[in-house]
Amino acid sequence: MKAYKDMTKEELAAEIEVLKAEYKKYQDMDLHLDMSRGKPCREQLDISMGMMDALNSEADLSCADGTDCRNYGVLTGIEEAKILIGDMMENNPDNIIIYGNSSLNVMYDTIARAYTHGIMGNTPWCKLDKVKFLCPVPGYDRHFGITEYFGIEMIPVPMSPEGPDMDMVEKLVSEDETIKGIWCVPKYSNPQGYSYSDETVRRFARLKPAAKDFRIFWDNAYGIHHLYDDREDYLVEILAECKRVGNPDMVYKFASTSKISFPGSGIAALATSPNNMEDILNQLTHQTIGHDKVNQLRHVRFFGDIHGMTEHMKKHAAIIRPKFEVVLNALESRLGGLEIGTWTNPNGGYFISFDALDGCAKEIVDKAKKAGVVMTKAGATWPYGKDPHDSNIRIAPTYPNIEDLKLAAELFTLCVRLVSANKIYKEKTEA
Amino acid sequence: MKAYKDMTKEELAAEIEVLKAEYKKYQDMDLHLDMSRGKPCREQLDISMGMMDALNSEADLSCADGTDCRNYGVLTGIEEAKILIGDMMENNPDNIIIYGNSSLNVMYDTIARAYTHGIMGNTPWCKLDKVKFLCPVPGYDRHFGITEYFGIEMIPVPMSPEGPDMDMVEKLVSEDETIKGIWCVPKYSNPQGYSYSDETVRRFARLKPAAKDFRIFWDNAYGIHHLYDDREDYLVEILAECKRVGNPDMVYKFASTSKISFPGSGIAALATSPNNMEDILNQLTHQTIGHDKVNQLRHVRFFGDIHGMTEHMKKHAAIIRPKFEVVLNALESRLGGLEIGTWTNPNGGYFISFDALDGCAKEIVDKAKKAGVVMTKAGATWPYGKDPHDSNIRIAPTYPNIEDLKLAAELFTLCVRLVSANKIYKEKTEA
Repeated sequence: MKAYKDMTKEELAAEIEVLKAEYKKYQDMDLHLDMSRGKPCREQLDISMGMMDALNSEADLSCADGTDCRNYGVLTGIEEAKILIGDMMENNPDNIIIYGNSSLNVMYDTIARAYTHGIMGNTPWCKLDKVKFLCPVPGYDRHFGITEYFGIEMIPVPMSPEGPDMDMVEKLVSEDETIKGIWCVPKYSNPQGYSYSDETVRRFARLKPAAKDFRIFWDNAYGIHHLYDDREDYLVEILAECKRVGNPDMVYKFASTSKISFPGSGIAALATSPNNMEDILNQLTHQTIGHDKVNQLRHVRFFGDIHGMTEHMKKHAAIIRPKFEVVLNALESRLGGLEIGTWTNPNGGYFISFDALDGCAKEIVDKAKKAGVVMTKAGATWPYGKDPHDSNIRIAPTYPNIEDLKLAAELFTLCVRLVSANKIYKEKTEA
Repeated sequence: MKAYKDMTKEELAAEIEVLKAEYKKYQDMDLHLDMSRGKPCREQLDISMGMMDALNSEADLSCADGTDCRNYGVLTGIEEAKILIGDMMENNPDNIIIYGNSSLNVMYDTIARAYTHGIMGNTPWCKLDKVKFLCPVPGYDRHFGITEYFGIEMIPVPMSPEGPDMDMVEKLVSEDETIKGIWCVPKYSNPQGYSYSDETVRRFARLKPAAKDFRIFWDNAYGIHHLYDDREDYLVEILAECKRVGNPDMVYKFASTSKISFPGSGIAALATSPNNMEDILNQLTHQTIGHDKVNQLRHVRFFGDIHGMTEHMKKHAAIIRPKFEVVLNALESRLGGLEIGTWTNPNGGYFISFDALDGCAKEIVDKAKKAGVVMTKAGATWPYGKDPHDSNIRIAPTYPNIEDLKLAAELFTLCVRLVSANKIYKEKTEA
């Protein structure tokens, strides 16, 4: 198909008429579809129902070491859960704290602790005039929400398929001691599905931050969330690399089973160095007596071990891979060659990232919404919800069923075409 | 028996010799007993095992309103859990937020939020030079641990069987705007088992705090934890009373099912006014997507309703009532008339509070420990772990089995006698 920019005004005007008529048809369908959040679908939840039988009233709810999981105690989590999650996170169980049901909550608490009490003896952030975070963009809106809530200034850092712009990260981090952290989703990133290259992780581990309390917030949310058996990304393990190069305390690593078992009823974890562990536990001991050990045990009994968990992930992949393909096919077949957008084709994770022509994202999302398809708010992938290019749109294909998704993806591409054609037509008119 | 203070030096010396010999016998028994923490015993945990069958792989994990509890969302908790916990807390379900597994965690987060962001638009506590809390004493060590961790100055307020000294509370709260809160365990208090009188709650609701962001931290941990069917304490419901007198926003009320279902695997909740709710939700939305709804549903399916829960509590009472009686009998039969200690006889809760002669608590606890019986650390019931009288000891009778408890209680009374006799003998010698 001919690129829109190469069309004449007349060709574009004709195209716009066709698109408008098509859009009208979708509006008449009274759709109520949602591609906004990275939520598993019902079929994905169904594959974890066996977890409800993993413990029953006849079960012995004791750990291998004899701890009765039904009672108080065990601040850092039961040993067998640490082993399972350690295998999942590729970290030593001794470097892991098992938390409650939400890794977002762990990240929030990690920021809050730095804010109220400081990191490893450094000044609490609430006592500083200025605290800044680096935010690879596009990124995860809930990360940005936490730092914004704490009044932390966010500096966008461009992403490439290799990860964040490391020249920029190295420069900023080494020069500015008010920069205290960076948000990273290093594998199957949110929303692009990029995995940081070996070189990127190497350079992260070798950062020389001006701030002694600079920390990398390494949210490995999609560590084992592959879409394809034969196209898996591998990520250099950051804690090990940091330890090797003499930077052992620079990383907080987060993960959870939210998109493995049940979102909201899984277990979350943090992996970090012994020094950071000690620092954290000095606080955690005041915050709680312990997290839900019965649920930890339930996960261990259900999955058995990391092999059980990776086999389980194949079932997830089998359900959501066709959904990614529906969206990717729609994008390719309906936008290919038009030069009005680019998109990612990830090997895992929960999202496809779409970049429209500058200044079009908001209008595209609005148009989709008016025809009954909810997308993630345009701008959400940027700090403060402000995408300076008004270009990036996050597509979340997992939740709707295939038929709905097909419709939603088609409508989305239609909105992209209509908004882009209008923009180019206007430019040609004004030129 | 003759009071020690009325004995002659010679009588005391003889008594001390007898007690020493007896103490030696206990030492030889190589005991390892624990009366230190308010932990349910195994038999208590067993009565909740049915909860493990409340949900299975055939179950529909949807709420009455159709929400799939297995997926993300529902920040404030599922409706049926709010109804159950609302009945438990005697509050409107609309005024309740269901949290994770730990009410301590909710209290910590409530303090942390006030510290980082302030309460309802008031200055964050981290920006103030001085923040103070009132602490009824003896009280709960983990409460004091949170306020100490945040650098909040704690002012002890004496308890009586009616509750905290309200003359003192009223005076301090109305005069000093740096006083931002008070820790209360209003029913079957920790450690005395006192329940606040109607008059005390009335006066709490009518406080006129100098600080606009003064809040009562009302930890109703033992709201339905009666020991006797025919001797229940009733507590005036504080939120309703505050609303009636025009002070609706003054209370955060906390509760959990920790000592109803499984400690560490229950559900916690906060009840408060609509204004406070709004203030809290502005923060909570950044901290988490939602708490564990599957566990909320599990509790609802297991207990059914508040009647099911109160029937369940009778089973707990049947198990632990004899344990309280063993301790109370030992105290009465072995210390009665000696005038070397007083103790409480609660109608519910998890503790008996013992007051030794001034200056004896530490030594008594040390002596018990040396003979293999761990008590709560002396001083723990006071802010900063410092009991100025060195007198109060918390006894937790629920965890050991009856035989162990009998031994432990006997040893404890022996230690009380020995330390007290030594003290009085010394005083008589020095006089």
